[in-house]
Amino acid sequence: MAHIELGVDENEYPGINGPMMFRPETAKPLSELAEVLLRGPHSLTSGERELIAAYVSGLNECTFCCSSHSAFAAVQLDEGMPLVDQVRANLDEAPVSEKMRALLRIAGAVQDSGRKVTAELVATARDHGATDLEIHDTVLIAAAFCMYNRYVDGLGTLAPSDPALYLAAAERNVEHGYLS
Amino acid sequence: MAHIELGVDENEYPGINGPMMFRPETAKPLSELAEVLLRGPHSLTSGERELIAAYVSGLNECTFCCSSHSAFAAVQLDEGMPLVDQVRANLDEAPVSEKMRALLRIAGAVQDSGRKVTAELVATARDHGATDLEIHDTVLIAAAFCMYNRYVDGLGTLAPSDPALYLAAAERNVEHGYLS
Repeated sequence: MAHIELGVDENEYPGINGPMMFRPETAKPLSELAEVLLRGPHSLTSGERELIAAYVSGLNECTFCCSSHSAFAAVQLDEGMPLVDQVRANLDEAPVSEKMRALLRIAGAVQDSGRKVTAELVATARDHGATDLEIHDTVLIAAAFCMYNRYVDGLGTLAPSDPALYLAAAERNVEHGYLS
Repeated sequence: MAHIELGVDENEYPGINGPMMFRPETAKPLSELAEVLLRGPHSLTSGERELIAAYVSGLNECTFCCSSHSAFAAVQLDEGMPLVDQVRANLDEAPVSEKMRALLRIAGAVQDSGRKVTAELVATARDHGATDLEIHDTVLIAAAFCMYNRYVDGLGTLAPSDPALYLAAAERNVEHGYLS
């Protein structure tokens, strides 16, 4: 049970959904930020950006966000959930482009602390073709999930264990986005 | 110098200001979130909410955000910067209400990990009069500054050392808010 009375059935509104219903004034910018970062027009696909979100949420051990964004990534990447699992298990060996690997390393540094992002990490990403916008958005996606993860877990919300629920949420997300 | 070409003079737009100019699409929800959380109608004063932001930014060792929000808190709290400094130096002994102390302890837990917020920390805050909305917003302010801090430092932005610059920014903030 969540730490506060959310005013909704948590089985119907698990994870971040309960706090978003509880406080619509903050839900609005939180949803808009996710929509721009993960689904707005971009040189990285939504699948690639969701992969960054899933990776960071895994490092933060946030079950709800990691399960959600792993599913959101999987349904939008040709390689599906096996690739998400490989990235999360062993980034060094995962079959992603060298640009994505370098961006995911930046995201991993951000998860620890913004101060862990070095000029070398950024130079490597740039050497593999990453643009300033891609580097900026990678940093901000990683930083934003350090927020969403803490929001979800800091309020003690429910994280369902049934993968089918996250897959259904992923299909809704791909169709309707974060603003619906 | 920042890790990416922000397109602005960093001395004129230090800290988060450069990235916000670089990417207005994400600046909009980021600013709106700060406005609602720190300046919207609330049972906690803006000074108290800025104190939570300053405390978390200090724990994250984010010089720009900690200096900024310490100044924003100081100009809005009767006790000014000495209180901000006491809270940051020794929360156990700082002359704040027991409710604020309990909320700041929740914020400190969130800074480490959302999973560190215990039922006991929440119960203590509630025993001292904290409402569900105050607990919710404390968790989200702390989580949001885990994002802003990583955004600012992850892009390697400039943090001026002159306290007068932060005080001037605080006066502008009190007058015009985060949306201007």
